Amino acid sequence: MADYTALPLLRLTEQFARLPGIGIKTAQRLAYYVLSLSKEEAEAFASAVTDAHESLHYCAVCQNFTDKDVCPICDSNTRDRTTICVVESPKDVTAFERVHEYNGLYHVLHGLVSPMDGIGPDSLKIRELLSRLNDGAVREVIMATNPTIEGEATAMYLSKLIKPLGVKVTRLAFGLPVGGNLEYADEVTLFKALENRNEI
Amino acid sequence: MADYTALPLLRLTEQFARLPGIGIKTAQRLAYYVLSLSKEEAEAFASAVTDAHESLHYCAVCQNFTDKDVCPICDSNTRDRTTICVVESPKDVTAFERVHEYNGLYHVLHGLVSPMDGIGPDSLKIRELLSRLNDGAVREVIMATNPTIEGEATAMYLSKLIKPLGVKVTRLAFGLPVGGNLEYADEVTLFKALENRNEI
Repeated sequence: MADYTALPLLRLTEQFARLPGIGIKTAQRLAYYVLSLSKEEAEAFASAVTDAHESLHYCAVCQNFTDKDVCPICDSNTRDRTTICVVESPKDVTAFERVHEYNGLYHVLHGLVSPMDGIGPDSLKIRELLSRLNDGAVREVIMATNPTIEGEATAMYLSKLIKPLGVKVTRLAFGLPVGGNLEYADEVTLFKALENRNEI
Repeated sequence: MADYTALPLLRLTEQFARLPGIGIKTAQRLAYYVLSLSKEEAEAFASAVTDAHESLHYCAVCQNFTDKDVCPICDSNTRDRTTICVVESPKDVTAFERVHEYNGLYHVLHGLVSPMDGIGPDSLKIRELLSRLNDGAVREVIMATNPTIEGEATAMYLSKLIKPLGVKVTRLAFGLPVGGNLEYADEVTLFKALENRNEI
């Protein structure tokens, strides 16, 4: 925006433009939208930002975001405490919970091992995961990292640490996405689908 | 997001999801991004929202957003005060300023006449526009509303009000967009391009 634009508007636009996936034009549109809100609505927006930031921290057990000491999933009596699903980020927990089929616990790594980006195992919540396996209650750890190079490397690295503890380590299945089209599947996916075929 | 999600996170996600063009998944991604910011950055974001909302209001002359009484364009000594470019929204002023070719003044209507949506002329900043034409200094009003039904209707409505005051009223040219492809131009655009053809 040109230099005649009022400074508070420029500043708000810049703040929106820093968000992931928001370009300068969208940021400008969002800034104007905020101006169209009532005073109460704008204040609710601003305080949602500061409140979330102030009140949320990592769950002492699974490292997911929570405003309590221990998150509702880790604290629940009805979840299966013998299984831990290891994911990269809190978003992945949401994705699994949406399926309504998994009833075990989670562990959020907050990243993947990626030597190229300087992210070593120490940057992740791996020590916290291993400490959860000490009392023998956990019998299976599901590696639910993404099917990428970093996701695979992290799954392999963790499985080498966990297997010696006598805990079963499993990996999410790879294959054709349901509703997908065979024609558009990439070679690696198709190979995995073939390799992991099941008798019907 | 499921009901186990921490309330402050849900609230922040809802706030983002209310923004135009932001779906629930993007809103969730933005909310998590805010959590990844430092305390100072999150506070800067929140205060940009409240600051913009508190300090910005309409320019007393052109009705564009400003944090002064009169905006820098209306207040400038170097702008051509005989021409007013009438636009729907403050975004359009930014679009014209980006061209660096227009040196006149602006007038922001903050909407278009749209009987279907219950927006009559009284909801727009039309009285404010007419009052700027009283002293005879303005010689041309450029109708720069969008080439839509509402934009056209508003331009026609205003021109009928302004012409009797002895002020020239012009309309933006319609035709092929520069760099566009004739093949993909819609019929109405192509008709306008043909109708408004110029001798070379």
